[in-house]
Amino acid sequence: MNAEDIIRAKRDGRELTRDEINYFIHGLVNGRVADYQAAAWAMAVYFQGMTPRETSDLALAMAYSGEVMDLSAIEGIKVDKHSTGGVGDKTTPVVVSLCAAAGVPVAKMSGRGLGFTGGTIDKFESIPGFRTELSQQEFIDQVNRIKAAVVSQTGNLVPADKILYAIRDVTATVDSIPLIASSVMSKKIASGADGIVLDIKVGQGAFMKDLDSAAQLAESMVAIGRQAGRRVAAILSDMNRPLGWAIGNALEIQEAVDTLRGRGPEDLAELCSILASYMVYLGGAAPSVEEARAKVEGILADGKGYQKLCEMVAYQGGQAEDLERIAEIDPARLQVEIRADRAGYIQRLRTDEIGRIVMRLGAGRERAGEPIDHAVGVKLRRKTGDLVEVNDTLAVVYANDRQRLEEARKAWPQVYTWGEEPPRPTPIVLGTIAD
Amino acid sequence: MNAEDIIRAKRDGRELTRDEINYFIHGLVNGRVADYQAAAWAMAVYFQGMTPRETSDLALAMAYSGEVMDLSAIEGIKVDKHSTGGVGDKTTPVVVSLCAAAGVPVAKMSGRGLGFTGGTIDKFESIPGFRTELSQQEFIDQVNRIKAAVVSQTGNLVPADKILYAIRDVTATVDSIPLIASSVMSKKIASGADGIVLDIKVGQGAFMKDLDSAAQLAESMVAIGRQAGRRVAAILSDMNRPLGWAIGNALEIQEAVDTLRGRGPEDLAELCSILASYMVYLGGAAPSVEEARAKVEGILADGKGYQKLCEMVAYQGGQAEDLERIAEIDPARLQVEIRADRAGYIQRLRTDEIGRIVMRLGAGRERAGEPIDHAVGVKLRRKTGDLVEVNDTLAVVYANDRQRLEEARKAWPQVYTWGEEPPRPTPIVLGTIAD
Repeated sequence: MNAEDIIRAKRDGRELTRDEINYFIHGLVNGRVADYQAAAWAMAVYFQGMTPRETSDLALAMAYSGEVMDLSAIEGIKVDKHSTGGVGDKTTPVVVSLCAAAGVPVAKMSGRGLGFTGGTIDKFESIPGFRTELSQQEFIDQVNRIKAAVVSQTGNLVPADKILYAIRDVTATVDSIPLIASSVMSKKIASGADGIVLDIKVGQGAFMKDLDSAAQLAESMVAIGRQAGRRVAAILSDMNRPLGWAIGNALEIQEAVDTLRGRGPEDLAELCSILASYMVYLGGAAPSVEEARAKVEGILADGKGYQKLCEMVAYQGGQAEDLERIAEIDPARLQVEIRADRAGYIQRLRTDEIGRIVMRLGAGRERAGEPIDHAVGVKLRRKTGDLVEVNDTLAVVYANDRQRLEEARKAWPQVYTWGEEPPRPTPIVLGTIAD
Repeated sequence: MNAEDIIRAKRDGRELTRDEINYFIHGLVNGRVADYQAAAWAMAVYFQGMTPRETSDLALAMAYSGEVMDLSAIEGIKVDKHSTGGVGDKTTPVVVSLCAAAGVPVAKMSGRGLGFTGGTIDKFESIPGFRTELSQQEFIDQVNRIKAAVVSQTGNLVPADKILYAIRDVTATVDSIPLIASSVMSKKIASGADGIVLDIKVGQGAFMKDLDSAAQLAESMVAIGRQAGRRVAAILSDMNRPLGWAIGNALEIQEAVDTLRGRGPEDLAELCSILASYMVYLGGAAPSVEEARAKVEGILADGKGYQKLCEMVAYQGGQAEDLERIAEIDPARLQVEIRADRAGYIQRLRTDEIGRIVMRLGAGRERAGEPIDHAVGVKLRRKTGDLVEVNDTLAVVYANDRQRLEEARKAWPQVYTWGEEPPRPTPIVLGTIAD
């Protein structure tokens, strides 16, 4: 067996055996397969695709290419949630809190933002004192005590995926459904959870631009989970608009807090409720998704979700009292309203462009490792479907730098597509695919 | 402009601009384009192909990616010949001699053998004392004096092709017509000749397995030559049988000498005569290919071609007298006849397998840089189409090692496909594509 023959087999449309996939993926880590061979192979996969069996084998080979989290010391059925990345997505603080409050343990590892999508760890770090790096023992102990912990990715998990993704990122081989599905699922499998709820974003602000490909991706990921002995549910959610009103780290934590206190934006509250319901259901705390939903709504209504977030923040070094006024502790110095110079219905919002504008304000990073500013961002006042009059406030920009503020103001008008009639309303949740 | 966008464009089937191709190829040499990006790009080209314009631009970008031979100090229209590689191909010593004897200068750079195909430089080095490394000045002076010189490839010619080929070789991206055509032509263009005759081998012992793809390759190469201001003719020749009877370095030089002396195998003599005719015609020494052919036949008949080879050997450090008995100077110690254990017509010869058997006897190398044994090889006594009786001698194996000899004997029977009827005879030259 050698790398070239495996590349040729895939190039010629042959289904790779499990042994071939294992050879290739382990070879990537031990150096027997060169990065240029991985690149040619990824391009061959782009053209020829992979069968469900190959995709599962690939995900498992990557999942077990390095360390694997051992969560066996945590009692109960551990659940995890993964979002494919969007703009204004602050569901993690909300759903982790709701799920833990329902008694289902969530030992969550999250990432940082890159490009126009934000990252959960960056958002949590806008809470003064909040520690996102815990030792393995602290992490497990905390989940056993309060059912919830959120930490940044650690250890030598999925080295094969890290190598392969770095290559795909610069060789135009990212957008391949089997490669995306196996990459995401390898990380989730290595992270050790028993149940996994996937939030697959669909639309202009997401990686998957249309519902068909998002559904294909979801099915592929659910099938991989089944193969790995995990229970998986995938929610397809709309990313043709930012989620909620706020984009930017502290602003988003504030909105997550508001949502747990029953005052959040409707779309965010709805999506969080559904994601948490599936987590609670997969975690075995309710016999059906419907009953899980009722439980989650109850936890939202009686404030136990918010209490759980306060508890987690306190455990990880923050002050629960800060949560109520998080965006006011160290606010952005410049806050400017952007007003409409025309009237009409907002037909569409260029969500990816909004993400980029906020990133350039300093809330995100173009390259891994760049510092970010937790205070800056944008709060929308009007969204897709709204009727706007001349001089209405469209959004408020929060900045700490006059030049960046000016750039954001200048770029802002291009995010809108206007019309005379309201667009057809779309729900936040577009579909569900569960095992 | 960046490498990833260029890969994506090709992946999506877009025609690359000349600027994009230049950026990518120069980037390969200066390090701005990584080898894994080249690999992904080559695989995208494998699937999407290239237009004739792209292929020419690629060949030219590679040709001018490093040093280019300056043959302007050589008087006359310089011609070159290139074979895509076969088994038993000893045309170079013959055609260089014929062409030079006709007054057309041939400043020839050749390569060494690899895998089942032999290399011209290895063959010439079976002549005792023959120097294949001349300085640039010696090379040019010799061609000016006697119209012929054969040296091994030298200098930093086509570095982009070297990098790209090394990557293609291990990423299953060799067999792409635009990549093969541009690779060959980049080398020929950088080698500086005005006229180029291509010998494109077709069949089991060649890279191109069928006439259609060989014709496509030929057309692509002729078009590249036109774009580069060179006159090009491509001869499609049969490689479903070894060329001539001898395979192995000294044995092949002996057969080339025999051919120049009018005693060579019919297929070899015919192919050499046609290749040399096109070279003489492109070199301007005859107003038509037909007249060039008459000239070449005359040179063969009066022994001037053989005199030219003697002259060249003497100039490059060998002894002309050695040529008459080259295979007897340091012959292989073991010479064993292989006899037929059945009767019938030889329907087909697995030419690639014959090449591999001879390589394993020590006449060739599996990896670049390995030493070879000039004396060993095989002389066929029966070829495709021949009627064989039981106990007829099929071939004679020349070896210097008993174990290797045994391996060759054991492997030999599998090269034949037998039948009751003679196969349809095929000519040695299958077609010609000229500018």
